[in-house]
Amino acid sequence: MSSKSKKMRMNWEVPASKMSHQTFNPIRNIVDTMKLTPNPDKEMIALSIGDPTVFNNLPIPEHINKCVVDKIHGQKHNGYNPSIGYEDSRAAVAKYSSTPGKELTAKDVVLTGGCSMALDLCICVLANPGQNILVPMPGFSIYKTLAESHGIQVKHYNLRPEKNWEVDLDHLESLIDDKTATILINNPSNPCGSVFSRNHLLSNDVPILSCSGLTKRFLVPGWRLGWIVINDRHDTFTEVRAGLVRLSQRLLGPNSIVQAALPEILSATPEHFFDETVQYVEENARNFYNRISKVPGLRPVEPQGAMYMMIGIDIDCFPGIKDDVDFTERMVKEQSVFCLPAQCFQFPNFFRVVLTIPKAKVSTACERIEEFCKKHYCPSKATNGSTGSDKLTNGSGSH
Amino acid sequence: MSSKSKKMRMNWEVPASKMSHQTFNPIRNIVDTMKLTPNPDKEMIALSIGDPTVFNNLPIPEHINKCVVDKIHGQKHNGYNPSIGYEDSRAAVAKYSSTPGKELTAKDVVLTGGCSMALDLCICVLANPGQNILVPMPGFSIYKTLAESHGIQVKHYNLRPEKNWEVDLDHLESLIDDKTATILINNPSNPCGSVFSRNHLLSNDVPILSCSGLTKRFLVPGWRLGWIVINDRHDTFTEVRAGLVRLSQRLLGPNSIVQAALPEILSATPEHFFDETVQYVEENARNFYNRISKVPGLRPVEPQGAMYMMIGIDIDCFPGIKDDVDFTERMVKEQSVFCLPAQCFQFPNFFRVVLTIPKAKVSTACERIEEFCKKHYCPSKATNGSTGSDKLTNGSGSH
Repeated sequence: MSSKSKKMRMNWEVPASKMSHQTFNPIRNIVDTMKLTPNPDKEMIALSIGDPTVFNNLPIPEHINKCVVDKIHGQKHNGYNPSIGYEDSRAAVAKYSSTPGKELTAKDVVLTGGCSMALDLCICVLANPGQNILVPMPGFSIYKTLAESHGIQVKHYNLRPEKNWEVDLDHLESLIDDKTATILINNPSNPCGSVFSRNHLLSNDVPILSCSGLTKRFLVPGWRLGWIVINDRHDTFTEVRAGLVRLSQRLLGPNSIVQAALPEILSATPEHFFDETVQYVEENARNFYNRISKVPGLRPVEPQGAMYMMIGIDIDCFPGIKDDVDFTERMVKEQSVFCLPAQCFQFPNFFRVVLTIPKAKVSTACERIEEFCKKHYCPSKATNGSTGSDKLTNGSGSH
Repeated sequence: MSSKSKKMRMNWEVPASKMSHQTFNPIRNIVDTMKLTPNPDKEMIALSIGDPTVFNNLPIPEHINKCVVDKIHGQKHNGYNPSIGYEDSRAAVAKYSSTPGKELTAKDVVLTGGCSMALDLCICVLANPGQNILVPMPGFSIYKTLAESHGIQVKHYNLRPEKNWEVDLDHLESLIDDKTATILINNPSNPCGSVFSRNHLLSNDVPILSCSGLTKRFLVPGWRLGWIVINDRHDTFTEVRAGLVRLSQRLLGPNSIVQAALPEILSATPEHFFDETVQYVEENARNFYNRISKVPGLRPVEPQGAMYMMIGIDIDCFPGIKDDVDFTERMVKEQSVFCLPAQCFQFPNFFRVVLTIPKAKVSTACERIEEFCKKHYCPSKATNGSTGSDKLTNGSGSH
């Protein structure tokens, strides 16, 4: 080989595909470019991580571990399983997800490697590249990441913070065009912590693919056990059901041991575990909300479910602070408290706090947020002078 | 709502996407349409399932279970992990995959939910829709399923049964065009059970993404723990590495518990477990090969690795039997022995047997295959009269 061709080969660069370039995680993109240098005199408190396990303050019940350990020792579930999941495990999810008058069976369930995979299969089976799906704003970033990686456009419909994050139905309707393949509803909401009223949810006529999993309710996000429940109405999902089965054959579903343990996990986890977890999160939510409500320049929206709360920033009252990214960056620098700027959810001038942190940290975090705001707040700078929560808007005309 | 529009809505059918329609599993497509009615007088022996756990004759060592159970009880690994996997676990795979003079580190490893996901990420990062990848023929069907689901074409390069399934390099080269994104090599081979010689493998210059996992070597296919090892050469994979990280963020990797147990599983599983498994498969391979070699009309190719053997059928010597699908279908009907027709691997007039079955069943299966062939074999019908294994071809000009 001549030294010239050798050099050419050395300089060769294998190009990465279009799909890999259009796969984009907005959270990582924002967080990884933030300057996160905590105050060395204060221990860091991360209110940013949507993972209920990070502080080890919410242990899972021994029952759940035992279910899995038994299946490991049984040595009967190490093999390949059906790509949509074991029949028994799917039947268990069907039972768990049934409501009076609307009984589901195993054929209505597809098990997946986490809820992300459930969402991916649903988006992939319903939409084609060049089509669009409607997603909530603020909304969790995974919908955008999954859809855009396949060349499917996302269009954001507004949620209304002043109405407990209800959907702005007129806005949603205005976005629908002949390329709209589906509408994605996230309830309870991440990042809002809101729960839609029964009235606000859609009609019984609409066929729904519902994605869920063990992650947040059973506090095991790393186990990657999710599912799709097919709420067919008027038998409109014949093609979609077959499509989901075919798509499931690409990656073959979740870990077999956790799958096998699923029936017992779903049916026999003691109720007090859920009650205690909910109480814990509720108490944190109440404390956060009550304290932050009194902080000038901040406007928390009271959460009703999930494990998050969104807090609006009257950014005009904080001179010298540009936006939510700047606000949260400086709160790390000065107070060692890290909240996720809501630009991560396409909703500027809010930030999200996670409500599963240890109770003692809630109090410290609130004190520090208060101190930070007291230092930077300057009410005379507000342009409209209004602080009434009925005027709460995010001003996100930029989407 | 008028009764007419109500009726229209009732007849509505949600269309499934193009991706779901072009996701296609050739094995399922063939097997699900076969008439598999066993002889009621003979117990069924399935030599078709490429899963070493189905007969419970190859138990995994207690050590592997203990590693996982310890991590469950530790309660430190229930949370989300980095989408490419825990640093420690990736370091363990790097160490496990290093060879003298070619040391790998954690940054060269991406953990995935099974080897299927590893393959999917690799195909997705290297090829665009409209491009093609070269895959072996015979070859396992998942490559085709994954690539075609993304609109990436597969072109099949021939393996040569008469040369221990070496690649027909001239044929491979003839397939390369300006749309060829990558060449997929499967070694050891499923379905062939062949192992390439060092000489036959490609040069040290070529950058390689190598996919593997716990599945076959550790006998836990259901655990869905796979990985990609990035064998970069001349730093040509800068874009590809970044692309793999972005793509991994779509589905967030494998089960956290198994991941956490990986370092100990890889480093401390007793060597005698692997030795015993290999001996078991080797003995089955030898017995199968020796017996089937003597059966007129059949031409086994001696396997060297993996857990499979391919057996050629001199189809012209079996009057009234149309092809490998017909052959294997009738063997189920008459002898209750089910082998996978190699049309599943785009290679007609062969069939695949799995070599991990209980030893006692090998003998019975061979007897029945002998009986079946004796009944249907008619040497005078052979068109060329040759039975020498040097003339072994698959005559698959139809691809």
